[in-house]
Amino acid sequence: GRSRPEVVILGVPGREQVLQELQRLRPIIASRADIAAIDLEFSYDFTDKDHDLVIVLGGDGSILQAARQMGENQIPVLGVNCGKLGFLAALSPNQFLDVWPEVCCGGFEIVSHLMLRATLTRDGEVLGSHLGLNEAAILGGPPYQILSIDMFVDGQLATTYRCDGLIISTPIGSTAHNLSAGGPILHRTLDAFAISPISPHTLTYRPVVDSADRIIELTVAVPNESTSIVVDGRVLGRIEAGDRVEVRRSDHAFWMLNVPGQNDYRTLRDKLGWGGNTLPKK
Amino acid sequence: GRSRPEVVILGVPGREQVLQELQRLRPIIASRADIAAIDLEFSYDFTDKDHDLVIVLGGDGSILQAARQMGENQIPVLGVNCGKLGFLAALSPNQFLDVWPEVCCGGFEIVSHLMLRATLTRDGEVLGSHLGLNEAAILGGPPYQILSIDMFVDGQLATTYRCDGLIISTPIGSTAHNLSAGGPILHRTLDAFAISPISPHTLTYRPVVDSADRIIELTVAVPNESTSIVVDGRVLGRIEAGDRVEVRRSDHAFWMLNVPGQNDYRTLRDKLGWGGNTLPKK
Amino acid sequence: GRSRPEVVILGVPGREQVLQELQRLRPIIASRADIAAIDLEFSYDFTDKDHDLVIVLGGDGSILQAARQMGENQIPVLGVNCGKLGFLAALSPNQFLDVWPEVCCGGFEIVSHLMLRATLTRDGEVLGSHLGLNEAAILGGPPYQILSIDMFVDGQLATTYRCDGLIISTPIGSTAHNLSAGGPILHRTLDAFAISPISPHTLTYRPVVDSADRIIELTVAVPNESTSIVVDGRVLGRIEAGDRVEVRRSDHAFWMLNVPGQNDYRTLRDKLGWGGNTLPKK
Amino acid sequence: GRSRPEVVILGVPGREQVLQELQRLRPIIASRADIAAIDLEFSYDFTDKDHDLVIVLGGDGSILQAARQMGENQIPVLGVNCGKLGFLAALSPNQFLDVWPEVCCGGFEIVSHLMLRATLTRDGEVLGSHLGLNEAAILGGPPYQILSIDMFVDGQLATTYRCDGLIISTPIGSTAHNLSAGGPILHRTLDAFAISPISPHTLTYRPVVDSADRIIELTVAVPNESTSIVVDGRVLGRIEAGDRVEVRRSDHAFWMLNVPGQNDYRTLRDKLGWGGNTLPKK
Repeated sequence: GRSRPEVVILGVPGREQVLQELQRLRPIIASRADIAAIDLEFSYDFTDKDHDLVIVLGGDGSILQAARQMGENQIPVLGVNCGKLGFLAALSPNQFLDVWPEVCCGGFEIVSHLMLRATLTRDGEVLGSHLGLNEAAILGGPPYQILSIDMFVDGQLATTYRCDGLIISTPIGSTAHNLSAGGPILHRTLDAFAISPISPHTLTYRPVVDSADRIIELTVAVPNESTSIVVDGRVLGRIEAGDRVEVRRSDHAFWMLNVPGQNDYRTLRDKLGWGGNTLPKK
Repeated sequence: GRSRPEVVILGVPGREQVLQELQRLRPIIASRADIAAIDLEFSYDFTDKDHDLVIVLGGDGSILQAARQMGENQIPVLGVNCGKLGFLAALSPNQFLDVWPEVCCGGFEIVSHLMLRATLTRDGEVLGSHLGLNEAAILGGPPYQILSIDMFVDGQLATTYRCDGLIISTPIGSTAHNLSAGGPILHRTLDAFAISPISPHTLTYRPVVDSADRIIELTVAVPNESTSIVVDGRVLGRIEAGDRVEVRRSDHAFWMLNVPGQNDYRTLRDKLGWGGNTLPKK
Repeated sequence: GRSRPEVVILGVPGREQVLQELQRLRPIIASRADIAAIDLEFSYDFTDKDHDLVIVLGGDGSILQAARQMGENQIPVLGVNCGKLGFLAALSPNQFLDVWPEVCCGGFEIVSHLMLRATLTRDGEVLGSHLGLNEAAILGGPPYQILSIDMFVDGQLATTYRCDGLIISTPIGSTAHNLSAGGPILHRTLDAFAISPISPHTLTYRPVVDSADRIIELTVAVPNESTSIVVDGRVLGRIEAGDRVEVRRSDHAFWMLNVPGQNDYRTLRDKLGWGGNTLPKK
Repeated sequence: GRSRPEVVILGVPGREQVLQELQRLRPIIASRADIAAIDLEFSYDFTDKDHDLVIVLGGDGSILQAARQMGENQIPVLGVNCGKLGFLAALSPNQFLDVWPEVCCGGFEIVSHLMLRATLTRDGEVLGSHLGLNEAAILGGPPYQILSIDMFVDGQLATTYRCDGLIISTPIGSTAHNLSAGGPILHRTLDAFAISPISPHTLTYRPVVDSADRIIELTVAVPNESTSIVVDGRVLGRIEAGDRVEVRRSDHAFWMLNVPGQNDYRTLRDKLGWGGNTLPKK
């Protein structure tokens, strides 16, 4: 290993607060680590790179972008929120300064998190494939007729949803769109997907949590003109009748530094206003 | 008054079962009433007509269409379901035959139901206006970014929803899209709107029921490219930044014959599988 | 009419902050009104009294208590929260000072609010009856077997709920227990009840909003040993098999001063963190 | 191994249909297996027994009882529903007859399912401990004041729930009380608990799914007079202030025969009316 860690700093482009924090944090980062690159354009190419850490300045959206940008070469991420507290970018710049020396000593656990891969296929040909850290969702679009979505799990028809849309969420994504649609919160280390319909027509439809080892395939019998498969907020493609969407575990996990004192329940208290103070029990 | 009622028969086009029931019911209807028109093309013009009753052969969708078609000249409706039981088309053809003689004697109460009018305005100019029996909904569409919808009630900012969409529902519409989105069931004779966000980003958003006398105005600060206002499943128009959607009580109510033995709770039992037998208490 | 209003001050007993605010507000109240009584023991007898206003120092619970205490002789209430913001006690002490001169000039509208009356009957004999401002609820209790609750509306069996409990809520109570159980928010001036099951066994059960003119009767075929009817958090009585609970509109409305700038949506923003600033639209 | 499997038949006491099916199935069972015992009183002692299979005649409740009865000596179960279809007792008597020969050949996979152990402790002393196949729940009881429940996960305060109750559910229990309270459906083979509050006072509380390796401890600061910990519908004990309830994975799993053609999604379609026919995709 190296004597000093090699880091890349990513930041969301064109935001004043990111630039200011970068100015402030950069020399302190450089005092204990080698900065291989600073990318404020979401353009750095991680292919074949062998860095130790990616520091992301921004919010949860920037971390989603970082995960996409690293693609098949995932490097551990430390998120610093420049703005309001995020679920993923849980450290403030000042908290970052506090933990930075210990990070460089290797004093932190690196935790892997589930990512998914969504692939759109037409007549046996792959039209596109996206890596997702949050979720893959089929969304209806104009003219907004109710959708019939067949879901196959490991090759067996599981059910036919009649709904406005359907979300397949990772644990990290469970507090994003999935939560808005009524899905449960999955602890981040759980190896599972949450499957949550949006505005289900049948009232007995409820969110299901299934193993991340399943292969989920989705088809839409009569899609609307702009029914799409959307991964982490980006449209992967329009879905036509007969198209097949496959959602499965990605071969590559997303890695995050586990900061002491931060955990899922703490984040729920801080972000969702859940009750309870933060003192350990006696 | 006339000695015999004058009726119009509407039926959904091109459905075999409607044609068959029409053949069967037509002579029996004619034995006690004058048939002014039979329209299986949703094209009959009700302007300035003075009929007593509209018999709709079809399902709930046909009754929505009938309400639209009558426009400002609403005539009482009796719905006969040709297919599966509906919330609105609650009589089977055989049940219709049972009650028909009494209907012609004027033996049934006519009940008025709230309709809404949704109007889309840009720079002070009305782009379009639709009458709705079920609901008016703002729906997001591609590229599916979360919407910020400002809602003004009687000219006061009520709240800003962050959501995938927003439904303003009548009591009759409360068992349609509103129910899928988590909204409550409103008794049909209630003079109120249900206001239900779709996949609200903020978890404390809950459906609200407010008086039908309110004037609700909606604006979308940064609409998606195909964010639309949709009334009873028909797109009224695309919404651009600065556009204003007004939803208010229509000047015209929808009239339905009140069939004895049918009521809201009975329909909930029959349609939603709610528990309870149908015997009156002793 | 009197030249100066005659007021009663009610306060929750034994709370330091109430005593302090009472000291501070009392002379200012007295400068423009006659104080007929100060009751910090929830014991003042309102029978045959003819006061103009009741000022309640405390929180929402104190206002529930005030409504009960006035019983059949309801007098308009102005709630001042001594502690955290309430749904009902929406004025802070300082806001009270601001509006007090105008209140005494009669500058405020008095708005009536629905109250309910719940009555428990066994073998034709009334065992007890409570006035409620928030809700009447049937709650299961040990040994916590699922309940079957028959609900009759205007003498007709509406449905049989299988659930942990059932809440009949007024509009004012809709943001209390009803909201926790998944019920909708009713605008306070709506003349309706929300009927919301707790943990319904059948997933198609959804909250229903019905007219406050209905007479709702509830029976529990096989109650648990401590299944009870609870009104505004107070147990009215244990329910045995064959008992009948009737819930209907009270003959007496609850009156509150309508403070300008306060309205339902504003309270939702302040109490539930609903989005939107408070500026009127331009 | 034995040449013929050794089985015990359990049946719910005093139900006519169970007796009839027992008469019919007994000789057919005996033709391929040795019947070690028939217990229609829920009294058979499994301690130190080494049987191969337990056939349960009854419904889901009987299977919960069987799991309890076997305690620390769990033997694989095959459930036959005598009455309506269950989530656990998924085979009809006729379906049982079809699969029985193949069962005796060892032609079926045995699948282990998570059970939990709930333990109530006061002043360091264990007051009681129950094995649960469905859930452990803290339930409020009279006088029905809202509960504050502190939840510690692996020794850290996770949150303080303000609610009517709290359910810790296994995957098998996720379609029972947990589902009524709004919790998600967990695939049965998932190694996780669903943590679902009942009527949470704070609207941002949502069900959480966490690893079954967690140790969950619960305390109630100010319990109601009959606040209890209830496991699979049986009261384990009343909870007093200072008491500690621990819920964790049981050392013993519950074993069920995996019948071909039966799976979680099929059961959801059959029991909850989820859409979709049962044909495999082509």
